[in-house]
Amino acid sequence: MGSRSDWETMSHATEILDRLQLPYEAEVVSAHRTPDRLFEYAQTAQARGLRVIIAGAGGAAHLPGMTAAKTMLPVLGVPVQSKALSGMDSLLSIVQMPAGIPVASFAIGRAGAVNAALFAAAMLATGDTALAQRLQQFRDAQTQDVLDAAQLP
Amino acid sequence: MGSRSDWETMSHATEILDRLQLPYEAEVVSAHRTPDRLFEYAQTAQARGLRVIIAGAGGAAHLPGMTAAKTMLPVLGVPVQSKALSGMDSLLSIVQMPAGIPVASFAIGRAGAVNAALFAAAMLATGDTALAQRLQQFRDAQTQDVLDAAQLP
Amino acid sequence: MGSRSDWETMSHATEILDRLQLPYEAEVVSAHRTPDRLFEYAQTAQARGLRVIIAGAGGAAHLPGMTAAKTMLPVLGVPVQSKALSGMDSLLSIVQMPAGIPVASFAIGRAGAVNAALFAAAMLATGDTALAQRLQQFRDAQTQDVLDAAQLP
Amino acid sequence: MGSRSDWETMSHATEILDRLQLPYEAEVVSAHRTPDRLFEYAQTAQARGLRVIIAGAGGAAHLPGMTAAKTMLPVLGVPVQSKALSGMDSLLSIVQMPAGIPVASFAIGRAGAVNAALFAAAMLATGDTALAQRLQQFRDAQTQDVLDAAQLP
Amino acid sequence: MGSRSDWETMSHATEILDRLQLPYEAEVVSAHRTPDRLFEYAQTAQARGLRVIIAGAGGAAHLPGMTAAKTMLPVLGVPVQSKALSGMDSLLSIVQMPAGIPVASFAIGRAGAVNAALFAAAMLATGDTALAQRLQQFRDAQTQDVLDAAQLP
Amino acid sequence: MGSRSDWETMSHATEILDRLQLPYEAEVVSAHRTPDRLFEYAQTAQARGLRVIIAGAGGAAHLPGMTAAKTMLPVLGVPVQSKALSGMDSLLSIVQMPAGIPVASFAIGRAGAVNAALFAAAMLATGDTALAQRLQQFRDAQTQDVLDAAQLP
Amino acid sequence: MGSRSDWETMSHATEILDRLQLPYEAEVVSAHRTPDRLFEYAQTAQARGLRVIIAGAGGAAHLPGMTAAKTMLPVLGVPVQSKALSGMDSLLSIVQMPAGIPVASFAIGRAGAVNAALFAAAMLATGDTALAQRLQQFRDAQTQDVLDAAQLP
Amino acid sequence: MGSRSDWETMSHATEILDRLQLPYEAEVVSAHRTPDRLFEYAQTAQARGLRVIIAGAGGAAHLPGMTAAKTMLPVLGVPVQSKALSGMDSLLSIVQMPAGIPVASFAIGRAGAVNAALFAAAMLATGDTALAQRLQQFRDAQTQDVLDAAQLP
Repeated sequence: MGSRSDWETMSHATEILDRLQLPYEAEVVSAHRTPDRLFEYAQTAQARGLRVIIAGAGGAAHLPGMTAAKTMLPVLGVPVQSKALSGMDSLLSIVQMPAGIPVASFAIGRAGAVNAALFAAAMLATGDTALAQRLQQFRDAQTQDVLDAAQLP
Repeated sequence: MGSRSDWETMSHATEILDRLQLPYEAEVVSAHRTPDRLFEYAQTAQARGLRVIIAGAGGAAHLPGMTAAKTMLPVLGVPVQSKALSGMDSLLSIVQMPAGIPVASFAIGRAGAVNAALFAAAMLATGDTALAQRLQQFRDAQTQDVLDAAQLP
Repeated sequence: MGSRSDWETMSHATEILDRLQLPYEAEVVSAHRTPDRLFEYAQTAQARGLRVIIAGAGGAAHLPGMTAAKTMLPVLGVPVQSKALSGMDSLLSIVQMPAGIPVASFAIGRAGAVNAALFAAAMLATGDTALAQRLQQFRDAQTQDVLDAAQLP
Repeated sequence: MGSRSDWETMSHATEILDRLQLPYEAEVVSAHRTPDRLFEYAQTAQARGLRVIIAGAGGAAHLPGMTAAKTMLPVLGVPVQSKALSGMDSLLSIVQMPAGIPVASFAIGRAGAVNAALFAAAMLATGDTALAQRLQQFRDAQTQDVLDAAQLP
Repeated sequence: MGSRSDWETMSHATEILDRLQLPYEAEVVSAHRTPDRLFEYAQTAQARGLRVIIAGAGGAAHLPGMTAAKTMLPVLGVPVQSKALSGMDSLLSIVQMPAGIPVASFAIGRAGAVNAALFAAAMLATGDTALAQRLQQFRDAQTQDVLDAAQLP
Repeated sequence: MGSRSDWETMSHATEILDRLQLPYEAEVVSAHRTPDRLFEYAQTAQARGLRVIIAGAGGAAHLPGMTAAKTMLPVLGVPVQSKALSGMDSLLSIVQMPAGIPVASFAIGRAGAVNAALFAAAMLATGDTALAQRLQQFRDAQTQDVLDAAQLP
Repeated sequence: MGSRSDWETMSHATEILDRLQLPYEAEVVSAHRTPDRLFEYAQTAQARGLRVIIAGAGGAAHLPGMTAAKTMLPVLGVPVQSKALSGMDSLLSIVQMPAGIPVASFAIGRAGAVNAALFAAAMLATGDTALAQRLQQFRDAQTQDVLDAAQLP
Repeated sequence: MGSRSDWETMSHATEILDRLQLPYEAEVVSAHRTPDRLFEYAQTAQARGLRVIIAGAGGAAHLPGMTAAKTMLPVLGVPVQSKALSGMDSLLSIVQMPAGIPVASFAIGRAGAVNAALFAAAMLATGDTALAQRLQQFRDAQTQDVLDAAQLP
């Protein structure tokens, strides 16, 4: 994530990863304040064994796009809700990437963090039967929760 | 894609897939006009051997999200540029998915179609060395094109 | 409604229905987390005797549109106010339906829930004189309330 | 509709009504330039035998809301695409009605006009078996059209 | 104003009118809930001696435009800040009037209410020397206030 | 107006003034490129006999607000449609004036220019019976035009 | 800054200037309420030894642009977050200047104030080695802060 | 600039630089497709004698911000008008930089390119009397052009 203040949002991603028993690194890498570290981080990610990168950032959110520019790994971008523009700036900065360097974008804020983690799991599950089962259980439980509480008021 | 008129946009995705020698189906499946077919399509996709689904739609673009609701496969959404609102409606309908069912969103229009295809390739390349090489060549060539034409005017 | 958290908004609709003595079901049906139940719910609605469906949802609000795709009954959509984008995403996801499958949209939040209920009553009142009278009384009382409190400060 | 220039949009509604064999009046009634006629039109609509009113308007689109203020009949609003703001002004002026006086809103432009007509038909079809059959045929044909042309390119 | 809840905003207008010793009526007239009263109010305004009408409303704010449709008097519109869309809906509903029936619009919320009152005073001051002097004193005092407190911190 | 390119829009205002036989000056005064002339123009306007100022500008449209800062005369602002943002920037720059210095705003583009002229006429008509009659005739003719062409298709 | 209420935002600029040991004036100069003082301030700025002007304002934020119109000095604009529109009005009023009179714009709110100060320092640092060193130290410390706290949770 | 297609916009900057006799480099450096070259370009800019960098980019416009992250030189950002969102995405990606790394932003499109060049000249003019004179002449001529053509029609 681009700033320590993004942790409140991005911790929702690590909760999902924990629940699905997926190992991960959680670090602050600022595109603007630590550009060299970002480049090194992205460039060495594949060799260090990472399979996918989730990058959360707010405002002029350049972290996901610049990470994608420096790695062949799939990059998932989470627009953090910003103060003045409620994350519309974060969203457009992440999703409107030019043709050639893709970033997969998710919803603004908590839902985006949760879904980026679930999407990462879905990607990895295509080659990991045990993970696929855990993910299926997660979704079944989620469906059951809605069904159990369907009647109102 | 959700409508035959989306082909003008989505054909940019198939061009990339062709170039990277990735086989694919290209079909119109309307969430609103053929909902049963959408459900059947999504539900049987994994068993038919699909690895990832790219769904392009415009306006109240429900196709990517409803596809994701019916499959565990990764779903990539492409917001097609709409007439009145220039695709802002398509984008928000696709990217603002609630926590629990992820859709990976890309840019409005042609760039989004190209990048969804490249992202699909990046996902698959993690387990396919030959594809990884073709993708690397694509990106190297793209970089070289910019470098070759860097001087202006 | 698409989520239990929508009840705070949608209960304003049931208050109106209660006041106008219109029977109803109030249930959570999630387009994304319980798509099969949504399809079954919508497909059997007419046969179960429903005359109109009010569907409230927020964010990428697919519930109203997908309900409309699976029934001939009139569907009324209420955009629930979302956290980051204040319901603009909900509104566009609901109102920008493509030609062919209509959803009648109302205002974001409480006003939309109230008005969807009143609109449902107006539809049914065309064939129900007693309801028409109750609705007329409701509107007369509403008018009188404004007239009674017209002078300021 | 509020202006003769709205006819280009609203004629898509009358095409649907013609196809479904629903009789209608098509008139220009300007909320701002002919307010008295609007009031008389709305106030006498029910007595003249109208069952539903489709009101299309652009910009500060007051026609649907003021019609609804003067009749108990269901009012369907179609936001006409405006020049500067592409119909976002029309949409918000129509859909953001305060609690108490409902207007059912549809998409900006042609799709909204088509869908308002289809929605009117769906409303009337609940008490008219022959119309319900024609509407079902319309939707079946629409579904078949998508299925017939599903393969690309 | 269109609703009693608008008083919190519109009372800022009456404060200015009081300060400038301009007599006024302050009433709730709802375009949607009391349309007949609105028409009567607007139609008789000139004969009752009103010189200008300030109309504040929120959401689908039809009050200023419909007032202008029924009187030759200058109408000043104040967009009240709405809950979901922060008054952007109110502003567009008021300011985007079609050619032919003008409404003079002011800023969203308190500033708009203050300025509508000051504008009304400026209009009337062109034929009222004493008022012109009071208005000049108001503006001089306002300028002096800024000058007196110009140094920071 | 702030630029010669605004004439295409603002000439719609002078057409109305001509038709209502109201004398006027039509000049380009740029807030940014000729600030001293703007100040002199605004400061001397009242003494030169002007009764109201219509200021049209686009983009960061400072002309109306700065004119209002330098005169007690009523200032009417017309947001000219800008290239990239379609006049939304012009509108907000004009209408969102802070409390204390009012500018009356009208619609973006041609409608705003027409209505600013009609509003100026309405202001002046309160003290000019002949003008009031001409304005009444204008509005009556406008109403009649709508009534004459009300039937469609 | 344009109003005393902008101090909460603009004080973040003076904190940076203090830390970098750059002398400055901090004053309220209202474009609308004290236009003459604004003109005098801007016109005499260069002669009084100012090298750059940071102008913060909200809403219809004319201060930066009008300052730029009256001086050859570089003007940096800071959009203050406004109540209704969250500073989108401030931003567009500042950044959308017409060709010919430049204003350098920064982010809405605190970040913009900080960055305007840092940008001013960067400008001045090109001719001041000691300042360049202090600025370099500031940026190095900022980078180190991110690196020190990079691990989460 | 970030892409060859930005030249249509950015050539308006070089026209101004030519007219003011300021030497410059004009190159395409893509943040996403040539990130290493961008880093090298930015990092060596000061040593190569550059005094200021004008960076134009569209969509998810990361070029200005990433350039600023890698140099102490002042960076001026020009949002290029994008196809779907008319440059609103470009603007927010450039202007909403987080506190710590400033980018000076200008208007969307041609006006922004012109003004970035004029701003660069103003910065350099503080230490270059001859340039200051040329800039003054440019502005005087611009003012005279407006004055010469002030009368309409």
